[in-house]
Amino acid sequence: MRAGPSQDEIRRQNLGALLRHVHVHGATTRAELTTTLGLNRSTIGALTADLAGAGLVSEGAPKETGRAGRPSLVVRPESARVYAYASSIEVDRLRAARVGLGGEVLDRRDLDRPRGMDAAETAPLLAGALTEMHHQVAADARCVGAGVAVCGMVRRADGLVRLGPSTGWVDEPLGATLADALGIDLPVTVGNVADVAAFAEHARGVAAGCDNVIYLYGDVGVGAGIIAGGRRLTGHGGYGGYGGEVGHMVVSRDGARCECGSRGCWETEIGEHGLLRAAGRSEARGREALQAVFEAADRGDARAQVAVRQAGDWLGFGVGNLINIFNPEMVIFGGTMRDLYLAAAAQVRSRLNQVGLPACLEHVRLRTPKLGDDAPLIGAAELAFERLLADPLDVG
Amino acid sequence: MRAGPSQDEIRRQNLGALLRHVHVHGATTRAELTTTLGLNRSTIGALTADLAGAGLVSEGAPKETGRAGRPSLVVRPESARVYAYASSIEVDRLRAARVGLGGEVLDRRDLDRPRGMDAAETAPLLAGALTEMHHQVAADARCVGAGVAVCGMVRRADGLVRLGPSTGWVDEPLGATLADALGIDLPVTVGNVADVAAFAEHARGVAAGCDNVIYLYGDVGVGAGIIAGGRRLTGHGGYGGYGGEVGHMVVSRDGARCECGSRGCWETEIGEHGLLRAAGRSEARGREALQAVFEAADRGDARAQVAVRQAGDWLGFGVGNLINIFNPEMVIFGGTMRDLYLAAAAQVRSRLNQVGLPACLEHVRLRTPKLGDDAPLIGAAELAFERLLADPLDVG
Repeated sequence: MRAGPSQDEIRRQNLGALLRHVHVHGATTRAELTTTLGLNRSTIGALTADLAGAGLVSEGAPKETGRAGRPSLVVRPESARVYAYASSIEVDRLRAARVGLGGEVLDRRDLDRPRGMDAAETAPLLAGALTEMHHQVAADARCVGAGVAVCGMVRRADGLVRLGPSTGWVDEPLGATLADALGIDLPVTVGNVADVAAFAEHARGVAAGCDNVIYLYGDVGVGAGIIAGGRRLTGHGGYGGYGGEVGHMVVSRDGARCECGSRGCWETEIGEHGLLRAAGRSEARGREALQAVFEAADRGDARAQVAVRQAGDWLGFGVGNLINIFNPEMVIFGGTMRDLYLAAAAQVRSRLNQVGLPACLEHVRLRTPKLGDDAPLIGAAELAFERLLADPLDVG
Repeated sequence: MRAGPSQDEIRRQNLGALLRHVHVHGATTRAELTTTLGLNRSTIGALTADLAGAGLVSEGAPKETGRAGRPSLVVRPESARVYAYASSIEVDRLRAARVGLGGEVLDRRDLDRPRGMDAAETAPLLAGALTEMHHQVAADARCVGAGVAVCGMVRRADGLVRLGPSTGWVDEPLGATLADALGIDLPVTVGNVADVAAFAEHARGVAAGCDNVIYLYGDVGVGAGIIAGGRRLTGHGGYGGYGGEVGHMVVSRDGARCECGSRGCWETEIGEHGLLRAAGRSEARGREALQAVFEAADRGDARAQVAVRQAGDWLGFGVGNLINIFNPEMVIFGGTMRDLYLAAAAQVRSRLNQVGLPACLEHVRLRTPKLGDDAPLIGAAELAFERLLADPLDVG
């Protein structure tokens, strides 16, 4: 008979499972861990001791207990001592953060990003912000790596931004450039912003426990992070795949020219440029300008109202198509798509109900992100935590 | 530490892996099985003996050998003795077959199906054909179950056809009706035709070894079986999900009324009705009528040429959208989509290249099925074989 997994493999899996549980769920009693992980008490004790010895978790009494008897010890992630660098490169801003094990944002910096800034200019700015935070960290704290969320198609293996229509980036070696700029010997992992935000919302946000999720994320353009059958949809090339480019689903054969070179892409109707143009504000730019349109519509500005209704209609149209293709249990509207969804919910639902098949519509829930605009940062940090969670003590 | 899997679990997995290998790949030497399955020679010998004892495989000398020395014994699936019933319910015909372990069609019957025939009329016809075949089977042969491929949205758990826009079926309990009509105590599993055809082409056809595949299947309407990350995309509800309804991706907001109740669905442009209407043959029906249009276009009939070019253009349009969403390595055109693709390959490719993102286009291959029109039947049989392969000796 084939041997089962080796003792080392089992130990690594169990360490990873325990650390992942407290990373995602926070402080957990030993009793809960025993039940949830299906391991006996002495094993949980031994694993916890190993992880505590490596400075990854701590143990202590629970904060309060309503029960009589000796309380079960609580295992907590060492959020202050173990952290990842996280960055989010958006069209109009750069965000840098330190995110502790457990997913808490410990420190952050926001910077403006002039449109047209290339990767070679962007990386030193982010590296500067991260280094500044680094100087304020306790000496015994440990950084496990850096993750970056960026709008565009990313080749995960080496952090190449293959194409960022909204930033204008083509074949930018962002991972390598940022690693150079940081000047530290740590892996830098780059992911698509919608993909990592979806991962964060799936792990610890509104989609926790859902196996089939579409997270629609808008900045200037629109992309989706898709969870199918409990796993990220990546397309060919695994996590370096380019799946989820729903913003470039063509919805109108004779539509407007898109920055990707095609015509009539969904994002020409629901993205920033299309909405501002429809509102008669072609010269405006940025999320504040979009919000001004939503506010104007709210105040009764007729042109803004038409623009918002039109965009909401197209939003429902495209989401209806995606629902027919994927049959998800949840659609999440993040970034500017959140704003548009909230401003035009009636139009979205009305068109969605026309386009979607009843069998697919009956169980789908429409939601806004629980992690809000932090989902890209927290998701970027997850890219860095993944290696630690796969092998917490580097058992090999 | 957590215990590894039990001896029974390991044995069941190994028996399943060996049987699945010869089921998919046919006659295999013990030496190859040892290498492929990563088990030692004595284990392969023991597993083979168990499977042979249950009448699932046989062992013998290879048909020829170019090498000196004692040849490695060959393990073959007992295709003639172990079989599944397979049925395919198409809009204009019913097909029933006996498919042997190993995927060979051993016997078959084709029947016309008048449009409008409901499930209660269909099931006895299929059951009759299957029973007729049953009478010619050797006494020691064993049927492991029945699988059915049907166009429409299927709830796998109980074989309910939720909605078949092309057949007009709504909430038809096909699985139960066919089991009753067969009058045998065997499980009847129902699957969507595109889904099971994709599974068959992925297991033993043109997409073997590909992890990200879209199998586009046309009958009167159009659906897709999608493999993402090596697994079937099902959507919410697991294998009872309704994912892959790409024919109801709306491509034209003001397009023609679709049988699903919506407007401008992709299948109104590339399905049978749209193509025949565009060719000025609204009264015609069926695959022969479609083929007559392709032949007329080939002979220079101007109206047929316009219709074929238009449909090919829409085919490329929708496939381009799906490529941007899924980033697959292969798209397979099956059923009437094969005919349309071959008749209008230039239009398909031209529009596809406009709509698809270059990073997604560069590695995608367009193919026709290797299993041809038998893919639905072979895929239907796979539904029945799945239980046997999961636990060949019913180890429990």
